[in-house]
Amino acid sequence: MPIRQGRYTLQFMTPPVIAGTASVVGKKEGEGPLGGEFDKIYDDPTIGENTWEKAESAMHRNAVTRALANANVSASDVDLFFGGDLLNQCIGTAFGIKEMEMPCVGLYGACSTMALGLAMAALATETGIAQTAVAATSSHFCSAEKQFRMPLEYGNQSPPSAQRTATAAGAAVVKTSGSGVKIQSVIIGRIKDLDIKDPNNMGAAMAPAACQTIIDFLRDTNTKPTDYDLILTGDLGDVGSRLLIELMQRQENTDISAVHADCGLMIYDLSDSDINSGGSGCGCSASVVCSYIMRRLRAGELKKVFFVGTGALLSSITPLQGDSIPGIAHGVLLVSG
Amino acid sequence: MPIRQGRYTLQFMTPPVIAGTASVVGKKEGEGPLGGEFDKIYDDPTIGENTWEKAESAMHRNAVTRALANANVSASDVDLFFGGDLLNQCIGTAFGIKEMEMPCVGLYGACSTMALGLAMAALATETGIAQTAVAATSSHFCSAEKQFRMPLEYGNQSPPSAQRTATAAGAAVVKTSGSGVKIQSVIIGRIKDLDIKDPNNMGAAMAPAACQTIIDFLRDTNTKPTDYDLILTGDLGDVGSRLLIELMQRQENTDISAVHADCGLMIYDLSDSDINSGGSGCGCSASVVCSYIMRRLRAGELKKVFFVGTGALLSSITPLQGDSIPGIAHGVLLVSG
Repeated sequence: MPIRQGRYTLQFMTPPVIAGTASVVGKKEGEGPLGGEFDKIYDDPTIGENTWEKAESAMHRNAVTRALANANVSASDVDLFFGGDLLNQCIGTAFGIKEMEMPCVGLYGACSTMALGLAMAALATETGIAQTAVAATSSHFCSAEKQFRMPLEYGNQSPPSAQRTATAAGAAVVKTSGSGVKIQSVIIGRIKDLDIKDPNNMGAAMAPAACQTIIDFLRDTNTKPTDYDLILTGDLGDVGSRLLIELMQRQENTDISAVHADCGLMIYDLSDSDINSGGSGCGCSASVVCSYIMRRLRAGELKKVFFVGTGALLSSITPLQGDSIPGIAHGVLLVSG
Repeated sequence: MPIRQGRYTLQFMTPPVIAGTASVVGKKEGEGPLGGEFDKIYDDPTIGENTWEKAESAMHRNAVTRALANANVSASDVDLFFGGDLLNQCIGTAFGIKEMEMPCVGLYGACSTMALGLAMAALATETGIAQTAVAATSSHFCSAEKQFRMPLEYGNQSPPSAQRTATAAGAAVVKTSGSGVKIQSVIIGRIKDLDIKDPNNMGAAMAPAACQTIIDFLRDTNTKPTDYDLILTGDLGDVGSRLLIELMQRQENTDISAVHADCGLMIYDLSDSDINSGGSGCGCSASVVCSYIMRRLRAGELKKVFFVGTGALLSSITPLQGDSIPGIAHGVLLVSG
C-alpha cells in the first residue's frame, strides 16, 4: 500500500520497477539531438499506412510491442494497459492496441498522458492490482495538425510561441519487482487555469499547472529542487519553461533553473525554423523519457528524476468559443535501480 | 489488496462503499420511465449556457456537486477524481470540474466510462491509494449530434438501429468504508472488434465486448447468470441487447435473458419515434445507475447487480476511413449494503 505524504503525494515502500521501455519517432525527431537514443526512426511519416491516424496507431503499436520485447514479457502477461493520446476519442491508442488482448484503461491527459500512465501503472503494480502493467502514448505531427490546426497542404505558419507536435510514441512496462529503474512516488495533479486563451501558446497555459504540481510535491516530500538530478517537465517548450522558472521564483522564492529540463526543448534541434518554442504532443515526453532519460537512469548517470508531464485540456473548439486553456500536470519520481 | 479471481477479475475483501450518487438529465430523459428517479431534470437543453459544450460541462459539474453533497463530503476531501466523456479531448469533464481542485485522472472509455470510473475509484479506495474517490461522466444529445453526426439544424434522420445520445450526467462518491452499496469486484475489459462498420449500429459493435467481459467474469468467479439479480449493460440498446443474448447463447450455451437489462432500454419511452434502438452516451448508464439502480440496491430490492458499461471506440473520422468499430466493456459488481 502506498504511503500518503502530505496532501497529494503517494510514496511506495516497495517501489515498482520499469522492466522495459521503447520509443519510436519520425524523421525530424530522429535528426534531433537525441536521434541516437530511439529504438526506431521512421523516415516515412506514413509508416506505410494510408491515413495519418493509422500512421499514429502503427507507431503506438510498434512502441508497445518493442517495450514488451525489451521487458521480455508478452501481451498476454499484461494485467492492465494504461494509454491514451490526443486524437479525437483516443483512436491512436484504441486502433494501435486493439488486437493485443490486454485489459485496457483508456486515459486522457493530453500531453501529460505518459506521466499519468506511469503513475497509474505504478499505483496498480505496487498495490497488487496488477503484476505487470503497461503505459503508452503517441502523437503524430500530421494527424495533430490536421485535427487541431490546418490541413498540411495549407502550409500553415506558426508563431514563435507555438510548439511542434512530435511524431513519436513511447511505452513502458512496469512490474512489481525486479531490476531496473524504480518509480519511487507519484502525484496526480489538479487542473489549473490562469485564463490563458492563446492555443498557439500552450506552454504558458501549462506552466501554472506544472508549477502547482512541483510545489505540491516539494512540500509533501519536504525536499528542495537540488535534491533531484532533474526536474523534467514535458512539454512546456521555451516560453513555458521560462514561465515555470519565473512562477517558481515568484510563488515559492525557489530557483529551479539549475535542475530543470524540458522534453520539448530536448527532442529537436532548436535552430530549426520549424520548431519555434519546442516539441509537444503526448509522444514527445513519452519518447524522451522512454529512451534517453531511462538509459541515463539505468546507467546511474542520473539518480533521481522528477518527471512532470504537462497537458493542455483544450479541444479545437474551446478557443473558438472564447474559452481559456486549463492545464494539468502529473508527476512520477524515477530513481536509478 | 484485491484478490485476483481467474485471469481478469479483481475481488475485494473489504469492499469499497458508494457513499453518495447523483444524476441530472434533460427534458426527454425526464419524461422517460425513470423520470421520478433523477436528482434534477433540466427543461432547458442549454442549461443557461451559450454553447452545447458548455451545457454539457454545466451538467457534469452539477452531477459532481450533488453527489458530493449527497455523500456529505466536500471537493477538498476528494483524493482522486476519475472522469471523462465523449466530447473531443474530454472537455465536458475538464471544463466541468476545473474549478474544483480535485486531483484528476482523465479517463476515456466512450460510453463505458461510468463503469470504468467506478472500477478505478473502487480499486483506488480499496488499496489505500485514496480514502475518497469520485467517478463521473456526462453526455449531451446536442453536443454529440454536432460532433459525431450532423448540425441539429439539418434535421438528420437516424435508422432504427441507431441510439440516441442521452442528455445526462452521473457521479458517484466512493469511500473505503461506511454504510451503503458496495463494489464487490471489478473487471477491466479488453478491446473486441468483430468488424462491424456501421456507426448507426453501435449496439452491434459493442455487444461482442459485453459478451466477452460477461463470459470472463462468470468464468473467473465461477458463477452463473442467475446468481445475479441483474446483468445490467449500458448501453447496447435494442439491437445490441438482442445480439448479446444471442452471442451468450451461441458461445457459452447460456441464456441471460431472464436477468439481463440495458440502461439504453430503460431511460426512454421506447414508443417515442425519436428513440430508435434506445439510449446511449456516457451519461445514459451513468444517470440510470446513479439513480434508479442505486436506489433499489439501497432499498435491498436488488441484492447483486453486475453492471457492464459498454463503449464503442470510434471517432467521427474512423468510419469515413473504412475502419471497423472496436468495442470495450468494463464491469463492476454492485451489492446492496
